[in-house]
Amino acid sequence: MRATDIITKKRNGEKLTGEEINFLINGYVAHEIPDYQISAWLMAVFFKGMDFEETGILTEAMLRSGSVINLHGITPLADKHSTGGVGDKISLPLAPIVASLGVYVPMMSGRALGYTGGTLDKLDSIEGYKTSLSPEEFRRILEKDGYAMTGQSESVVPADRLLYALRDVTGTVESIPLITASILSKKIAEGAESLVFDVKWGSGAFMKTKDAATALAESLLGTAKAMGKKAAAIISNMNTPLGYKIGNFLEIEETLDCLRGKGPEDVMELTYNLGALMLLLSGKTSSIQEGIEKCRKAVNTGEPLNRFLRNVESQGGNPEQLLKQEGKMRSPWCTKVTAEKTGWITGYDALSFGKAGVFLGVGRNKTEDKVSPTAGIIMKKKPGDFVNQGEEILEIYGQNEESLKEGVKQITGGINISGKKNEPENLIYKIIM
Amino acid sequence: MRATDIITKKRNGEKLTGEEINFLINGYVAHEIPDYQISAWLMAVFFKGMDFEETGILTEAMLRSGSVINLHGITPLADKHSTGGVGDKISLPLAPIVASLGVYVPMMSGRALGYTGGTLDKLDSIEGYKTSLSPEEFRRILEKDGYAMTGQSESVVPADRLLYALRDVTGTVESIPLITASILSKKIAEGAESLVFDVKWGSGAFMKTKDAATALAESLLGTAKAMGKKAAAIISNMNTPLGYKIGNFLEIEETLDCLRGKGPEDVMELTYNLGALMLLLSGKTSSIQEGIEKCRKAVNTGEPLNRFLRNVESQGGNPEQLLKQEGKMRSPWCTKVTAEKTGWITGYDALSFGKAGVFLGVGRNKTEDKVSPTAGIIMKKKPGDFVNQGEEILEIYGQNEESLKEGVKQITGGINISGKKNEPENLIYKIIM
Repeated sequence: MRATDIITKKRNGEKLTGEEINFLINGYVAHEIPDYQISAWLMAVFFKGMDFEETGILTEAMLRSGSVINLHGITPLADKHSTGGVGDKISLPLAPIVASLGVYVPMMSGRALGYTGGTLDKLDSIEGYKTSLSPEEFRRILEKDGYAMTGQSESVVPADRLLYALRDVTGTVESIPLITASILSKKIAEGAESLVFDVKWGSGAFMKTKDAATALAESLLGTAKAMGKKAAAIISNMNTPLGYKIGNFLEIEETLDCLRGKGPEDVMELTYNLGALMLLLSGKTSSIQEGIEKCRKAVNTGEPLNRFLRNVESQGGNPEQLLKQEGKMRSPWCTKVTAEKTGWITGYDALSFGKAGVFLGVGRNKTEDKVSPTAGIIMKKKPGDFVNQGEEILEIYGQNEESLKEGVKQITGGINISGKKNEPENLIYKIIM
Repeated sequence: MRATDIITKKRNGEKLTGEEINFLINGYVAHEIPDYQISAWLMAVFFKGMDFEETGILTEAMLRSGSVINLHGITPLADKHSTGGVGDKISLPLAPIVASLGVYVPMMSGRALGYTGGTLDKLDSIEGYKTSLSPEEFRRILEKDGYAMTGQSESVVPADRLLYALRDVTGTVESIPLITASILSKKIAEGAESLVFDVKWGSGAFMKTKDAATALAESLLGTAKAMGKKAAAIISNMNTPLGYKIGNFLEIEETLDCLRGKGPEDVMELTYNLGALMLLLSGKTSSIQEGIEKCRKAVNTGEPLNRFLRNVESQGGNPEQLLKQEGKMRSPWCTKVTAEKTGWITGYDALSFGKAGVFLGVGRNKTEDKVSPTAGIIMKKKPGDFVNQGEEILEIYGQNEESLKEGVKQITGGINISGKKNEPENLIYKIIM
């Protein structure tokens, strides 16, 4: 078998066999196949695609490049993956809600990159909270609290890190089968039996259109199912930031609001729907509507909030101190944005808000950049609200004077106020199972 | 400027600027841009192509990576390039014919590879003939004999060697703009003002169909013209080997036949047409028909034969010894192939004959393989001839016993004899200017 022939076969639009895909990936990880052959193959895949079976084989080959978390005996296990957005803190209220209903949630999350926020950075803003657990700690906390939160260890799916670094510099990031294998290999390595995807479309999403998001969702589901996993997906709107708060500690605060039953409508809608799908796939409900009701009722019992605070303690934080810091962890570099005219807010552009977040210190441009726990944006008004000229609509916190200035400049370009009220876009475009 | 952005731009089907193409090629040659980025870009070019302007810029960038032969003051200069075939010795009679009519021919040739013969290997079969000239020797012989034959020095277009090696292992050989830039960069580095291309189609050619050959010819002409060169092309048939002899010394013999006015009809037709185009582009005739007549008359004067023998001497060979060896330089491992049945020969498959040549020792599989001067095939009968069962049709010479057996096996699969005479295919499909 020769790598050149496999590249040429894919270039000609033919389907690769399991042997061929394994030959490439195993050879690459073992440094036997050079990166210039893999990058040519990645570009051929960009143009010619891969079907679900090929994508599943690629996912498995990547999976086998590293260690897999052993969660044997803990069941049912379900996880959620979001393709990333602005103000998207859904994982934080979702995990304790679903865990409180008897589904274990082994959650491995990522850090902020570009305008997309990161669950780990948000958790890091809780003093003492440990986001890097050993496999043993992860398993123990998962069993105890019903969920656990950790970053990905270096030993999980090393092939994904290698391939992603190569894709990043060879113009081969935007390929649906490659994105699918990257997401799935990590999620399956975590050990989940059921996978629920929140695939976002819109200005603040990786996928800019509903169609592109749907195509990715279908690839994720088709491939996951080809690999024997249960899976479902929600295609959701990311033209507008989610919730009222964007920021690291700010989103921990909004999570507490959600768990007290006082969360923003959009955040709760998405959380309940994703939770319902996790319950449905895990056999805990027989319909989405029933699942949504179960989640809502669970929040009203206070049990998910207790689980969240218990998990903070399990992972090294201090729940009492956390509650005392609510409303107080704010950067001293602060300014307010007021309405330029009277009318209805017709849009907060998620991309502008996300890019502003990078300046402010919520997100980062490069993996090695630091983020600030206390920076962010509080939305006093949201799209759909009526405002008078001069009325305060946003509170903005920067990591320093300069970042605040740049952040405000970026954000004001993303605010639209109009004399005419517009029809709000649906948050959930569709659910695919 | 970032290589990743340039790759992505081409991947998206956009036209690259001169700055961008130069950035890639200069960076690659200077080892500043890694091969994994270049191979991804090559694959994007494979799928998205390049227009004549981009291909011209790539050709110039490659050209500038090395030294260019200085032929200043020698004029007019014309050269021919063939995409390669079986029994294709056209360069050998063509150069002295055209030179005898006042057009200088600075010819840099290649070696046999795969089933395609190589002019340099044929010249090497002349004892003492030096196929590696210094730039000074090349210029001196060109001025004296009207033509000179040499291999490409390492200093000419090093970018082509680098890129070709990378394309060879990344499934990106079969790209018309990349093939165009590779051919043109070397031909323009030689210093020719007018370029005539013999683009072959058929089983023994790189391009298997007339359409593919036409597309390559159009790219070569469009790009050469975008670079300010005069150019023309012939699309010619390579389903059948050219002439009666295939082999290294055997083709030198057939060249002598051609220059004595006793050459095979097909070889002369192609030689005269290519010669006429070189004369036309160099302003020595006003029509192809007139050029063909001039070439034919020149051969009758004996001057081209004299030039050929003079060049043999200029490049270190011994013309008298060469003439004495005619008909005698034959491998001792010889066999005959006879007609299996009575009828018309309807086909000699060029690919089968070419592959047989590799076994026999005419060609080579890898650049480092040696070839034999005395191996080859003599066709006693050609397609269109009537033969009786048992009648001798081929004489075959191998480099040893084993190679002869393998060669014969390969060749007999390529012979077709039928009870019905078939319509011969045109040798010249079309001429493009």
